This record gives sequence, structure tokens and C-alpha cells, in this order.
Amino acid sequence: MRAYDIIYKKRQGLELTKAEIEFLISGYNNGEIPDYQISAFAMAVFFQGMTSRETADLTESIINSGDKIDFSKIEGIKVDKHSTGGVGDTVSLIIAPIIAYFGAPFAKMSGRGLGHTGGTLDKLESIEGFNINLTSKEFIEKVNKNKVAVMGQTAKLAPADGKLYSLRDVTATVDSVPLIASSIMSKKLAAGADGIVLDVKTGDGAFMKSIDDSFKLAEEMVDIGNHLDKETIALVTNMNQPLGEAIGNSLEVIEAFETLKGRGPKDLTDLCITVAGHMLVIAKIFDNNKLAENEVREVIEKGKSLDKMKEFIAGQGGNSRVVDNYDLLPVAQYKHQLESPAEGYISKIEAEELGKIAMMLGAGRAVITDSIDHSVGIKVHKKQGDRIKKGEHIATIYSNEDKLNSNIEKRTIDSFHVTPTKVEKEPLIYGVVTKEGIKK
Amino acid sequence: MRAYDIIYKKRQGLELTKAEIEFLISGYNNGEIPDYQISAFAMAVFFQGMTSRETADLTESIINSGDKIDFSKIEGIKVDKHSTGGVGDTVSLIIAPIIAYFGAPFAKMSGRGLGHTGGTLDKLESIEGFNINLTSKEFIEKVNKNKVAVMGQTAKLAPADGKLYSLRDVTATVDSVPLIASSIMSKKLAAGADGIVLDVKTGDGAFMKSIDDSFKLAEEMVDIGNHLDKETIALVTNMNQPLGEAIGNSLEVIEAFETLKGRGPKDLTDLCITVAGHMLVIAKIFDNNKLAENEVREVIEKGKSLDKMKEFIAGQGGNSRVVDNYDLLPVAQYKHQLESPAEGYISKIEAEELGKIAMMLGAGRAVITDSIDHSVGIKVHKKQGDRIKKGEHIATIYSNEDKLNSNIEKRTIDSFHVTPTKVEKEPLIYGVVTKEGIKK
Repeated sequence: MRAYDIIYKKRQGLELTKAEIEFLISGYNNGEIPDYQISAFAMAVFFQGMTSRETADLTESIINSGDKIDFSKIEGIKVDKHSTGGVGDTVSLIIAPIIAYFGAPFAKMSGRGLGHTGGTLDKLESIEGFNINLTSKEFIEKVNKNKVAVMGQTAKLAPADGKLYSLRDVTATVDSVPLIASSIMSKKLAAGADGIVLDVKTGDGAFMKSIDDSFKLAEEMVDIGNHLDKETIALVTNMNQPLGEAIGNSLEVIEAFETLKGRGPKDLTDLCITVAGHMLVIAKIFDNNKLAENEVREVIEKGKSLDKMKEFIAGQGGNSRVVDNYDLLPVAQYKHQLESPAEGYISKIEAEELGKIAMMLGAGRAVITDSIDHSVGIKVHKKQGDRIKKGEHIATIYSNEDKLNSNIEKRTIDSFHVTPTKVEKEPLIYGVVTKEGIKK
Repeated sequence: MRAYDIIYKKRQGLELTKAEIEFLISGYNNGEIPDYQISAFAMAVFFQGMTSRETADLTESIINSGDKIDFSKIEGIKVDKHSTGGVGDTVSLIIAPIIAYFGAPFAKMSGRGLGHTGGTLDKLESIEGFNINLTSKEFIEKVNKNKVAVMGQTAKLAPADGKLYSLRDVTATVDSVPLIASSIMSKKLAAGADGIVLDVKTGDGAFMKSIDDSFKLAEEMVDIGNHLDKETIALVTNMNQPLGEAIGNSLEVIEAFETLKGRGPKDLTDLCITVAGHMLVIAKIFDNNKLAENEVREVIEKGKSLDKMKEFIAGQGGNSRVVDNYDLLPVAQYKHQLESPAEGYISKIEAEELGKIAMMLGAGRAVITDSIDHSVGIKVHKKQGDRIKKGEHIATIYSNEDKLNSNIEKRTIDSFHVTPTKVEKEPLIYGVVTKEGIKK
């Protein structure tokens, strides 16, 4: 077998065999096939695409390039959750104790924030003492005891994915649906999930800007899951504004606690109910989504999972009193209130721009080695579709500098698009993709 | 400027600027832009193509990557001739003295044969004493004195082309028309041509298998020439059988002499007349093709350029008596006559296969470092459309081994496709491409 022939075959639009894909990926991973052949291959895939079967085989080859985590000792059906990256997306933190409350294992290997999107690990580390550096053994024990634990990725999961992604990043071959789908799914599946609920963000603040492309990516990932016998469903959700109201680590932790107390922003609460509902059905806790969602809603409204949240925090060395006392979280020294310069209706809130501003304030990283400030961030006081008066508070910036950089102030205000005429609220969830098809 | 953005732009099907193309090629040539970006770029070009303007700019950038030869001291309009590679293609050798006879300079930098195609240098070296290792100064002096000289390539012409070609060769990006066209034209133009006549071979024995693709390549090359102000015309000619009857170095030299004496095979003679006619019009020796071709035909029929051929050979140290006495050429020890196993009409002669067999006999090289045997080769006695009887001689193999390898015998005979029903002779020239358009 020669890499040349495989590139040629894909270039001609023919379907590759499993053996050919495996040859290419394992050869690339062990250094036998050079970058320049793989970049040409990736460009051919960009133009010719891949069938579901090929994409599933690609995913499996990437998984096979590294360690596979054995979480078979975790009791119950392990359903993982993945978001393609949003701003103010605190869903994982909120559903963790809810899933555990119902007795299903919430065993999440999570990552750190990069660029304009935050990471679950960083948010959790806002909590004094919280330790995400667990061994696999400790992790399994904690999940089996409390039904919930979160750890950083330690094993070399799917190393070919990292190598491939770095190459695609410099050869204009990132935005190919089968390549994105296999990249995401390989990491999730290598981490031992039995089922997956995907939240594909769409819009200005998301990697996928168009709804059509987002559904394509969602379908491709659901297909991969089905081909590899892991029940997978995908939601396509709105990222034309931040999710919830808080952007920044401690601010999002507070928002998570508030949501678990039934006082969270409507969009964030609704999305958590939908995501958790699907996870609990896949975990076979409930028979159907309607029932699952009703049960989750009640848990939220009555604050039933707060004890589980405390158990989760304490289980990983954190100070669980933080759930009742937000003063125990790091708080920025200064709050800068920003006022709307115009009167009208909010037509859009640039989520990516707000994510970048939060990063500039210190809440996120430009490169993975940057250190972050857990106390800073932004709170938005108006959402898309809301009416606002001139001079009304539109956002608050939490900063440790007494004088706000005028550029940050301007850019934050400019992120809110205000129009004089009434605008409709956009939907939060555009549709659900399951193996049965798309439901919009 | 970043290579990434240029790859992305081409991938999206947008037209690149001259500065962007120059940035990419010069950066690649000097090692600043890595292979993996250029291979992704080449694949994007395969799918999105290039405009004539982009292809001309690419050609110029490749020319600018190396030395340009200054042949301004050669008197007259220097018209070069290039064939995309055929089997039994002795045209350059035959037209050299004809062009010179009419007073136009025939100043050719030529190459060696590789694979199934022969090279002009190798053919000339069949002649005792013939020296192709000239300095530029010697070359210019000889052209100005005799109007004809041929030398090997010494200067580093268009080094980016070699680098690009090697990369394309292993990344399935060779067969992109703009990339092929710029590769060929950059070498010709770097060698100082004022005008070019291209012979684009099409069919089984050619690089371009389809007539449509061959016309596309011809058009692209003519466009490049026009963009760079060098008058360029291209013929698209038949390579569904070898040209002429001889394949192999000394055999082709003899065939060249015979053609110059008016006794050459019809197809080879006709093609020489057409090619030389176009060259002499571009060189402003004649006003129009019809006149030029009539004059060339007369020179051939009356053997008028034989003295010029002798001058050419003697001018480069060769024994010019060879023109009258073929025994002075190396001749293979054994002639193996092959007989037709069937009766009927020749529908096709696999030119590439016969080129490969000649190479196996020692007439050509598999790799550029192989040494060759000037005396061996094949003569075909029947051409496409001819009638043949069972047992009639179909080909002769000239070899230095007394017993012919049965595999070679079988493959040679199998190269001739014989059908019971009459077949029409295919055209020799499918059309001519000039800046005015295609004439079929």
C-alpha cells in the first residue's frame, strides 16, 4: 500500500477502504508518512468529502493511534457531553450534579479554555481547593462513590488527532466536516464514553457560522457514533449571543449555582434541561425525553441537586460551602457598569467578541501556557430580543483595574447591536439529530 | 503575507494576485515555506484551477527562482520547439538543419531520455565524437556561425520547478493543467526562447491520454506564452502509435537522415514539415504557413539540408561522414524478426509499451543515472490502419543478445492490436492552438 495511491483515490472522489484509512493514519502517527502527503490528502478530503463509513473508520483509526481509557469499572452507562465551544457555556457544570442525582455516572474528562471559549476545568478551579489532577483509579473510585467526578486529560488520547489538527491548522484544511467530526468524536470515544450528547453551537460566536453546516456536522458525528455502536445524539443550538448572562470563571460558577437553585437565566436553564434529559434517556434512567425533562426541571426548580453539587466539590477537595456563600469565590475588585448609548431592541450580541474581551480581561488564554484570573469577566444584563432604554445598564465588567480601558468599554458596548424596531427572540435549539434523522 | 491565507484563498476558488504567487514560489524555493503547505496548495489548484493570468504569473515566478540564460547575442529570432514526450519522436533532430538552412537560429538546450521516451542528447551521442557539453559562449558562437547547435542544460534553470515537481509527484498533484503548463513553459522561457512551437502528444503513449485534456494543456501553454509576450503555438498530435518506424538512438538517427533525404516515414515527415513551417513563420523567415511548409517540403524532397546537417555534426566534433555511411553508427549485433500471429488490420500500436521495451533492451533509462546502449531498439514495419498477413514481419528487435527474451518478444507482438475488419487511419495532427484560438 502506498500513501500516494490513497491520496489519488480520494482526489478522484472514490471511497477508501478501512485498511487504506488505517494505513494513512497509523503511518502518519508513527512518522512513516510525511506531513506533505497528509496535507494534500486533507485538501482532497475538503473537496471530495467522505462517506459516513469512511468517517467512522477515520475516527476509529485516530482512536487506535493512542491509549484507550478503560472505564469499564465505572458502574452504569457512561454518557458524555460535548459542546463544540461557546461563550458563557456553563452547561457541564450544572448538569454534573443533576445526572449524578438520578444515579447515572457523570464521569467527565475535561479541557481548559482557549481563545474566546472557557473550559470546565478552569471554572472548577475557581473553587478553593478543587483538584482536577486525579489518577484514573481515583477518578473511577470517586465516580462510583458520588456518581460524579471531573478530571483533566492525562493519558495520550488519540495523539494522531493533535498531529492532524496542527497540520490542518496551517494548511487551510480545518473546516472540513468529516475531519472536524472525526476529530471531536475520536477524543470522546477514546475517553471511554458509552453514549454521547453533542451540543453543536451555531452562529457568530461558534466555530460553525451557518445553521446548515452545523446540522451537517451534527449528522456526521451522530453517524460516527452509530457506526461505532455508541448511542449519540446532537443538538444544534444558538450561539448568536452568549449563553446565560455570565462570562468568566467565578462568575459562571455562581451562575451555575444559581441555576441549580432554580434562579438561572432562562436560556441556560432550558438548555441544561434538554441536554440532561437526553443524557438520562441514553443512560436508561428514563424511558423518554418528556418524562426525563420534567424530572430534571423539578430537580432544578426545587434545588434538589444542591447536596450532590456539594458532594461533588468536597469529593475533589473543594470547599463545598461555596455553594451557599459566593463570597468564598474570587471576586474582581472593581465593577464597571456600562450603559446603553441607544434606545431600542437588542438584535444580536456578538458572543465571540465578548469571549475575546473576557480573555483580554484575564479570564481566558490566548495560548495554552497563559495563566488566568478566575475573578474577572463580564455579565450581560440584556439578551437578544430585549428592549433597552438609553442609559440603562447593558453589561457589567468585572476587573481588577480601577480604570477601565476605553477600548474594552467601547468594544463591549459595540458587541450589543441595538435596532429601533422590535425584534423576535431567536430560538435556543434549532433541532435535534438522532440516528432516526433530524427533528427541527 | 502568509502562506496559509494564500492556500485558503485558492481553496475558496478566488484569483490570486501576482504578489501572492511570487511570495509562495520564492518562499518555497528558498525553504521558508514548507512542503506541507505547498502540497495542500497544489491540491487546491488541482480542484480550483488557475486563470490564464495566474498561470502566467506562476510561470514567471518559477522562472525567477533561478538563472535566466542570456542568449541575446544569438542573431535572429530564436524559436524553440518542445514535445511533451513521445515514442520514436525524432522531430528535433530532423528540423535542426532545416531551420538553420533557412537562416533562422536553431539553438536548443535539450535533455536526456527517461522512462519510455527518448532524448535528443542521447540520440546525438550515437554519433562518434559528438559533444553536447558546450559552454554558453561556445554554444552562442556555434549558433551564430552555423545557425544550429544543441547543448545539455548546465545552468540552474527554474529550480523551483524541479522542487515543485518532486513534491507533486508524491502527493497526487501532477495532473493539473496549470501546474503542468507552467512547469513546461518556465523551463523553455528560462532558456531564452523568443517564440515556441509546442507539440502536445495525445493518446496511449503520451502523458495526456485524452484529446480534450491535450487541447486544454495546449491552450494553457499558448496563453502563458502570450501573457509573457513570447509568440507560442501548440500542435496536438497523435501518440496512439510510435512516430515514424524507429525506436532507439542510432535507429532514430538513421531515420532522421533518411527523412532529410526524402525517404522518411510519412507521419514523421509530415509532422516535421508542420513543426518547421510554424517555427519559420514565428522566426519571420516566411509570411505564412502554407508558403513555409511548401519550402520545407522541397528541402526535404531534394535533400537540400544534408550539408547543413553535416556542418551541425562537424561543428560539435562529430564525424559528419555518418550522414552518408550508416555503418559508422553503432549497430546492434542481432536482428530478431517478429512475425504477426494474426491476419487483419492494425487498429492500434501501444507506443508506451514499445518505449518501455526499448528501454528494457538498453535504449533508455529507468532512472537518470542508468547508462544506455545506443545501438539497440525496435523497428516497426506496420503502422495503424495497415493490413497485415499472418506470418508477415511486424517488427524487428535490434539487440546485442543472440537469444531474444520470450517475454520481450510476446510483449512486442502484443503491442500491435490486429482486428479482422478494416480500420481507418487516425489523423496525425488533431489541431493547432494559436493566440487566435483552436483550429481543428
